[in-house]
This record gives sequence, C-alpha cells and structure tokens, in this order.
Amino acid sequence: MRVVDFIVKFLKQKKINDIFMLTGYGAMYLNDAVKLAGIKYYATRNEATAPSMASSYARLKNKVGVACVTAGPGATNALPGLAEAYVDSSPIVILSGQVDYKQTTHSTNSKQIRSFGTAEINIIPIVKPLTKYAEIIKNPKDVKYILEKAFYMATSGRRGPVWIDIPLNVQRAKIDEKKLRGYKIEKTKEKNSFLKIKNNLEKILYLFNKSQKPILILGHGVKQSNQIEAVKKIVNILKIPVIFTRFTNDLISHNKKFIYGISGIKATKFTKKIMNNSDLAISFGCRFSPQFVGHDFNALKKAKVISVDIEKDELAKKGQKIDYPMNHDLKDFIPYFLKFLKKKKLKKFDNWNSNCENFKKNNPIIISKFKKNKKNKLMDLYYFMDRLGKISSKNNILVTDAGSNYYVGGQVWNFENGQREVSSYTNAAMGLTIPLAIGAAVASPRANILAVTGDGSLELNIQELKTISHNKFNIKLFVINNGGYVSMHNWADAFFKGRRVDNPVDTGDGTLILKNVAKAFDMEHRLISSTNNLDKILKEIKRSKKPLFVEVLTDNKQIIYDAYKDY
Amino acid sequence: MRVVDFIVKFLKQKKINDIFMLTGYGAMYLNDAVKLAGIKYYATRNEATAPSMASSYARLKNKVGVACVTAGPGATNALPGLAEAYVDSSPIVILSGQVDYKQTTHSTNSKQIRSFGTAEINIIPIVKPLTKYAEIIKNPKDVKYILEKAFYMATSGRRGPVWIDIPLNVQRAKIDEKKLRGYKIEKTKEKNSFLKIKNNLEKILYLFNKSQKPILILGHGVKQSNQIEAVKKIVNILKIPVIFTRFTNDLISHNKKFIYGISGIKATKFTKKIMNNSDLAISFGCRFSPQFVGHDFNALKKAKVISVDIEKDELAKKGQKIDYPMNHDLKDFIPYFLKFLKKKKLKKFDNWNSNCENFKKNNPIIISKFKKNKKNKLMDLYYFMDRLGKISSKNNILVTDAGSNYYVGGQVWNFENGQREVSSYTNAAMGLTIPLAIGAAVASPRANILAVTGDGSLELNIQELKTISHNKFNIKLFVINNGGYVSMHNWADAFFKGRRVDNPVDTGDGTLILKNVAKAFDMEHRLISSTNNLDKILKEIKRSKKPLFVEVLTDNKQIIYDAYKDY
Repeated sequence: MRVVDFIVKFLKQKKINDIFMLTGYGAMYLNDAVKLAGIKYYATRNEATAPSMASSYARLKNKVGVACVTAGPGATNALPGLAEAYVDSSPIVILSGQVDYKQTTHSTNSKQIRSFGTAEINIIPIVKPLTKYAEIIKNPKDVKYILEKAFYMATSGRRGPVWIDIPLNVQRAKIDEKKLRGYKIEKTKEKNSFLKIKNNLEKILYLFNKSQKPILILGHGVKQSNQIEAVKKIVNILKIPVIFTRFTNDLISHNKKFIYGISGIKATKFTKKIMNNSDLAISFGCRFSPQFVGHDFNALKKAKVISVDIEKDELAKKGQKIDYPMNHDLKDFIPYFLKFLKKKKLKKFDNWNSNCENFKKNNPIIISKFKKNKKNKLMDLYYFMDRLGKISSKNNILVTDAGSNYYVGGQVWNFENGQREVSSYTNAAMGLTIPLAIGAAVASPRANILAVTGDGSLELNIQELKTISHNKFNIKLFVINNGGYVSMHNWADAFFKGRRVDNPVDTGDGTLILKNVAKAFDMEHRLISSTNNLDKILKEIKRSKKPLFVEVLTDNKQIIYDAYKDY
Repeated sequence: MRVVDFIVKFLKQKKINDIFMLTGYGAMYLNDAVKLAGIKYYATRNEATAPSMASSYARLKNKVGVACVTAGPGATNALPGLAEAYVDSSPIVILSGQVDYKQTTHSTNSKQIRSFGTAEINIIPIVKPLTKYAEIIKNPKDVKYILEKAFYMATSGRRGPVWIDIPLNVQRAKIDEKKLRGYKIEKTKEKNSFLKIKNNLEKILYLFNKSQKPILILGHGVKQSNQIEAVKKIVNILKIPVIFTRFTNDLISHNKKFIYGISGIKATKFTKKIMNNSDLAISFGCRFSPQFVGHDFNALKKAKVISVDIEKDELAKKGQKIDYPMNHDLKDFIPYFLKFLKKKKLKKFDNWNSNCENFKKNNPIIISKFKKNKKNKLMDLYYFMDRLGKISSKNNILVTDAGSNYYVGGQVWNFENGQREVSSYTNAAMGLTIPLAIGAAVASPRANILAVTGDGSLELNIQELKTISHNKFNIKLFVINNGGYVSMHNWADAFFKGRRVDNPVDTGDGTLILKNVAKAFDMEHRLISSTNNLDKILKEIKRSKKPLFVEVLTDNKQIIYDAYKDY
C-alpha cells in the first residue's frame, strides 16, 4: 500500500469521515487517497479557511479535525487559520503536500535557501511556533509513528494543532503496514500527581470555608477536558455564583440559579460587580486574559485567586493576580474534586448569592428596538441579537464574528435552550464566521447554523460563500449592515477626536451592495430592514432548509456597551 | 514626537509615499500617524494581500514597499503574502501593531503561552524563517536603529522582506529624535573581494575561449542588483545565445538578436535544445530551479556551468550541476566584468548562433485560434495570450496568475515593445494577480495594467476586486473562464487515469457566474467569447481609463505545451 493509503486508513480508524482541503500538485497522491478511501472532502476556495473549518468541526464533535493543503503557497495560505487554531487550542491535524524530499529546503539544512523544488517552502520551522508538533515525513516507514504522535499531541494535555508535511516521493512510496513502528505514549507519574491534587483540594476547601464571597470561574479547559457534566454537579454542590469566559458562555443556561454568564470588558456590569466584590475566585481552565479581567488585571482586586490550569506558564504570567496557582489537567483534577466535595458539608452563602442576584437585577443590559433620541430609527443591534438568541434552540449552533456582533452576542445570549456557540474567541479575528459555520455544518449535518457576521468581516473570507451554496449547507448567514467597521469608528472617536483613518469603507463608496454579493455567490438574499415582525421573520428563516444570506440593517452609530469604560 | 510620527517621517525621507494597510486596534497610532503624515494609504480587505501589493510596488519602483497590519490575526493574515515576498526576494517592510509590551507573549519568554494581551500573538518567531530581519521594538529609543537596520537588510545583499512589530505603548511613546542611536553598516573587506572577482573573470574568459557552444543565463539577480543596462552591454559584447528565467523574461525584447527568452519545463522546445546542446553556461543571479533546468537538473547535461550568485548556499545545493560556483553580489561583479570584457578580443560563435536560430525557427510555439479536431470551437488560450502581448506596449504592465495563463504568458510573450511583467514567479501561487496588479497601479499611476487571472485563481483574493473599483485603478482584469482548475485536470489525467479529486469546481455547479461577480464588486463586465475582432476589442479595452473585468471564454480542454514532456 502507498503511504497515503495508510494515512487515510488511519484517519478512518480514528473515525475521521470528513476532511477540509484544497487540492494541488504537491498533495496529489494524498488527494487521490482521500477520494479512494471515501472520506468526504470539502473543498475550500483559499487554504486560509481550511484550518478554521477543521477547528469548528473539532470543537463541536469533540474530536480531531483534519485539513489537507498542498505545498508552498498552499501551506503558507493556511497559516492564518492555523494561528487561530493554536490560540483557541483546537485539536486539528494539518496534512501538507511537499515536493520530493531531495528537492526540499529542509534537506539542505540551509537557512538561506528560500525555495528549492517547484513551489517549495520549508514549512516546518514556520509552523513550529504555532503547533504542538510539526514534522516532515522523511522516511516512509515513519508514517505510523508520526501520525500516532501527531494525534496524541493534538488531543492530550493542552490541546492544539499539529502539522505533518509529506513529500511527494513519500506520498507515493509503497510500505508494508505490518513493519511500521508506532508511537509509545510516555506515562506520567500518577502517584505524585494524586498527592498534589489532594493537597490542593484541602487548600481550596480551607479557603472556601474562610471565604464570605466566593465565585467559580469556568474557562475553556472545562470543555477541553470533557468535564462539563462533572462541573455541572460541582456547581450544584458549591452553590456559589458562576462566571463564564467567552469560550464557555454556552456551557449552562444563564437562567439557572448561580449562573451569571460572561464577565470582562465587553460583558455586563453585574458580572463585573460580582468579580469586584468577590473575596475568593476558584478558577478552572481559564487563562485570565485582559479581555476577561481588565487590562490592569484588576477585576479580582479584593479576591484571593485559585487557578487550576493545565499550563504552568499561564499560571506564572507577570501582571496577573493568581494567589494559588495549581497546575493540573482538569481531566484528572475535576473527578477528584467532585468526589471530595460529595463527602463534605459545605458552608452556605445565601447573603452573597442574593447580593449577586440583586447586582443582576439592577444592572441589566438594556435591550430596546431603537436608540433613544435618534431621528433615523435604525434597529439596535442589541435588539436583533437578543431576538436571534431567543428564537434559537437546541438544534441551533450560533456563530459570531469579530466586531460588534461578537460583543453583543456575548452580552445578550443566555443559552437557555441548549444552543451552542462557535467563534474565534481568543483573538476575535475578523472573517471567521463563514469557515466556522461551514465546519459546524459538516460536524452537525442536522443542525441549523445561525451565523452572524459584519459587513467588514464578511469580506475577509467572502470566497467561501460559494462553498456554502455549492454544498447546500444549512447555514443562515446574517450579515449586519451597519456601514462597515463600526468598532474602528468607536476607537477613532475615543482616541483621536474622531480623526478616522482609512479602512476599506471610510472614503465613501467602499461598502459592497450585499444583495449583489449574495447573487454572485449563488445565495438567496433576504433583507431585514426593520423590527416589524422580527420574530416571525426569524422563525421563517430558521425553518428554511436552504442556505440563506440575510442582510440585517442596523444602527450605523451603534454603541457597544462597555462594562469597564476603559480600554 | 511620538514613535509613530518618527516612523512615518523616516518613511517619507526614504521617499515612501504609499503604504498598503488594513487598520486595526493594535496599530491605531501607526494608522493615525500615516494619515497625519499625508502618506497615501491603500486599504486591503484582507491583510493577506498587503505584502503582495507592496512587493509588486517594490519591484516596479525598484525601492522598498511598505505594508502595515494590526496585531494578532492582522499579522498572521499577512503571512501568505510575506511568504511570497520572501521566496521572490521582494524588498518590503511590514509594520505590525502589537499590544502593550508588558502583555506580549514575547515579554514572558515562554513558548507555551499562546496569547497574552487582547488578540495578541508572538509574531516574531513565526516570521523569522520568512524574513531577513524581524524585530519587536521594546524600547522606544531603538526605533531609529531598528528602522535603519530593517531598510538596510531589505535592500542589501540578497533582497527580501523584513518585519517590525510595534507595541501600542511604544507606538504612542514620546521620543526626542536627536537622542536616537542609528544603525551602522558593517563594511565588507573590498580588497579581497576584488581579487576573487579578478580570478573568476580570468577563469570565465579561459572557459569561454575553450568553449564551442556557450550561453548566457540571466536570472533575477540581474534585476535585483540594478545591473540591467550593464548586462545589455555584456550581451552585445559576448554575442552568444541568451536565456532568461521566468523572472527576467521581460528584460530585453526577444526579437533582438541573441535573445531566446525563457527556458524550462513550461517554456519552449528551442530553448531546451539550446540548453541541452550548450557546452558552457555562464549564469548570473539564477538559482537553477527545477522548473528551469528540469526536475533532474538535466537541461545543462553537456555544459560546464559557471554560476555567479549572491547566495553561497544556493551554489551548494545537492543534485544541481554547478561546476564553477562564484559567490559574488552582481552589483560588484557585473561592472568589473563589463570593464574586463571591453579590453579583450573575444572568440566568435557564428556557427553555434546560427544553429540556435535554426532551433528557434524549427520549433515554434504553435499559435492558432482553435485547437484542431475539436467540435466546440473555443478560443485557444495561446491565441488570446499572444494577441494580448502583441497589442501591449511600453505603457503596459502585464500580470499573470498561477495555472495555464502563467505558463502560456511565459511561452508566447516576446516583450518586444518594452512591456514589463509582474507575477508570483518562484511559487506561481494562485490568486496573486489582483494584489500584484494593485501594487503595480499604485507604483505606476500612469501605466495601464493588463492583468490575467484564471477562474480558479480569481477566488483566492476575490475581495480585493472592490479595492480596484473603489480606487478606480487603471487595471484591466482578464479572467480566463475555462471551467476552472484546468492545470489540476491535466495532472489528474496524467497521473491517475483521469480520476479527479474534488477541487472547488469538480462536482458540477462549483464555478461562479463571472458577470455577477463583477457586479458584486462594482466592476464593469465585458465578455470576450470568440476570436472575432479580438485585436480591435483588446485595443478598445486598452484605451479605456476605467477598471474593467473582462471575462475571456477559452478552451476548457486546454493543453499546456510542455517542453520536457515529463514532470
């Protein structure tokens, strides 16, 4: 069998039935093997989006996502999506084609050669800082070892992307499957780890019992470690206010007791008050980003902070306030914690809980159809996003894109019906709604994807609109038409007395006519230009089985609610 | 003055009056300073294209091109264009915004932290393998040193891109311009270098006089070292056949005596014959890529090969045949060579020259309107590209894109009227015609850009069509409609018995309706559907001052002439 046939057989054994790829000369045997194996392949129209599709797929299916690109520019085109997968810790495997090994720059050991074979680039050193593992297969016999190691690295510890580069001579090489060596996982010393956990559990209990105003912070690690159900039980035992990060906003309905949703700069005043007043924060799998705790890491100023996190270096960052760093994989830690708690009688915090409920009651996000004192009554984005959240349900996956809709979605959605959300969380990168929605549609063919983007963000990966229509994905793409780059305008007003620097749309006729865009990419266009019958229209759109491009006119002077009022 | 104001002042002193950028939060002071300084800024709609615009600008103006992007995804989006600039050795400077230094991953010295500040990525280690110099400005006082070093590195030696990352706290920091230290260029020992050159000149002369069938190969280094005029004189002195690489195809009109144009796999049979029969090749600034000398480096099998090249490692690559590697910067070498030659009486090669003329006469590229034995008479791409070349003149810059038009343009254009060409040469990357054409339009506002792309390549950076229409660039974009991905189909037919793997268009309705695309991006659409009056129509198009989107229907079973008939 050819190396490529072994690779696709391996993928099928791992139950990878879908792959995102753009074909090319340097990956031609790989492409061929994927087809022969009957793995479903989704062609992207620029390699940049393939890793993001695979990331969305990986997160929603809780398994590895796979992308395949060709050599040289195929590989370098994929770097933007790879970077996103890295910062968002998505367990994806990228397979890249490569020229014959003897014509690779890699084989020369030179840092001065820029390209050797046809359209060749030495991709491994470039992707090293953006992956957990990156390797070129030099010897066909190493294919099993490298694949097994790659899958292990992607999914173990702190998850993340891996990259395998496969020269054409290796792709087509014949191998004897039985003679291949595999990868042996090194086992960690579990005994010490258990003792460390036990000590930390006692410490947490001690601090908890001393505390008056404890909170629980649930970060991305909770999802990544598959501990969602155990954590829900912990919430019901601790009975203290629970705060989410943007990654976990969809973890539990915000209508349930103790659940307050996200905190952070672009979050709510009441979660800020809860954080500010807390005297003890127990955090699971959260990296305390400035978006979450403020640019001065000041949100938890009165609290002792316990942070349980898989990444030691995250616990040691300068400037952030972590009093009790606890370096554990939540996969190990949470089950012990749950067992430990079940045996204890815990302190109650009725006063603190009712205080927090009052914070919420008295500091609501104001949702109205129109902004007050405005002549031209354009729909407020808060109103639209709120209604979209309300009409959605278990069968829906929500997607948001950089800019105002990302912030507002985070602020108004309560996930009360078991909806899920996918977004570019760490970076809030522009233009990822379309590829993330496509990954979601492939991961969940029965789901109805309600994806939101802005007219600025839309353009960055606009070519993939045709991927939606071509594959008839059940995606409703809501394109917020607010005249473009509203977030940038708000910054300009705040920092430079309204002095605006050119972005694509600032010099007049820079925006696209969205109806024409929909037509160019063969999507059916709908327009929501007012608040009239909004729920009815949204429900109709939701019922449709076709992909739809829904243009939504909203206020072009939209103000995004800022819980911190500083930047 | 702020650091950013110093930066833009420096750019203006370097006569950089244009910059390609997408604004963003992390670069906001930079963006603001650019505007205040009155530097013209061209907004891209995805950062991926900004470095390619700057590259085209740099190559056509023979100076540094500058791109500016924001932090995090802004920077990583720019990586595909950076990679192209690197392999094509374009002297460009990329300025990226960054979060406050204390919140950068760079400041932590950790390889495990993936993102620290808001939308932050440690871009320097990622771009290191793709740049000649990459630095983050930690101390505002270093700004002059880093800028001067960056400009020096980009333009000296083997040219290439450099990257400067500028944290927000540094961007806004106040500095005293007079107190800044600069960068001191280390001088190389010129005396030794002169002796080495002298020895090599004697060696070349000796081999030349012994030779019966010498040829001269002119590579990209000739353009990069600004030695075009001197090299033209050398051609007239040596009076031997001259072969171009794809980079230098537009160097001298192919109608002139001794000039045979490009050689290589996708070139002409007659240049292959010349190379195959030669007994001495004198090469200036050429890296002997497999596209040029065949995948087995076999084109010069009978020749002694002298290669004068700036990069030592390029001269030492395994597998390639270089008998006399001579490591010199052509900037130093060519003037000496010219002076040296003027004093000598040189051997004549009348027989060999007339042999080569016969090779050319007897092995023409066949240009006909239609392929023979075809029922549906669709225009042959060779015919279209030939006519486009013929009607173009000194005022035109030709641009080609990956795939069939890149190969055919290289094969049929003779550059007899002083036309210039810009393309992605090393990689023949898909999708770069649009950004390269935009860079050309900014570099040469009076030129008329005749840019060709394919319906496959068009999609990769389709968003920038609006950058063309918005800025009213004088670009005529010819989009070859051949049903998409013709090159891939040819590979499938050759390697996999016609078994075709899905690319975006292989499953039926995957192609876009180009008329709708033009409309969506506000470009005027024209259709060339036959060979009738082609010259007249092309001349009309050329005369227009507006940007135009010209759809050109060509044979969807286009065969690309292969001088080697192996892959």
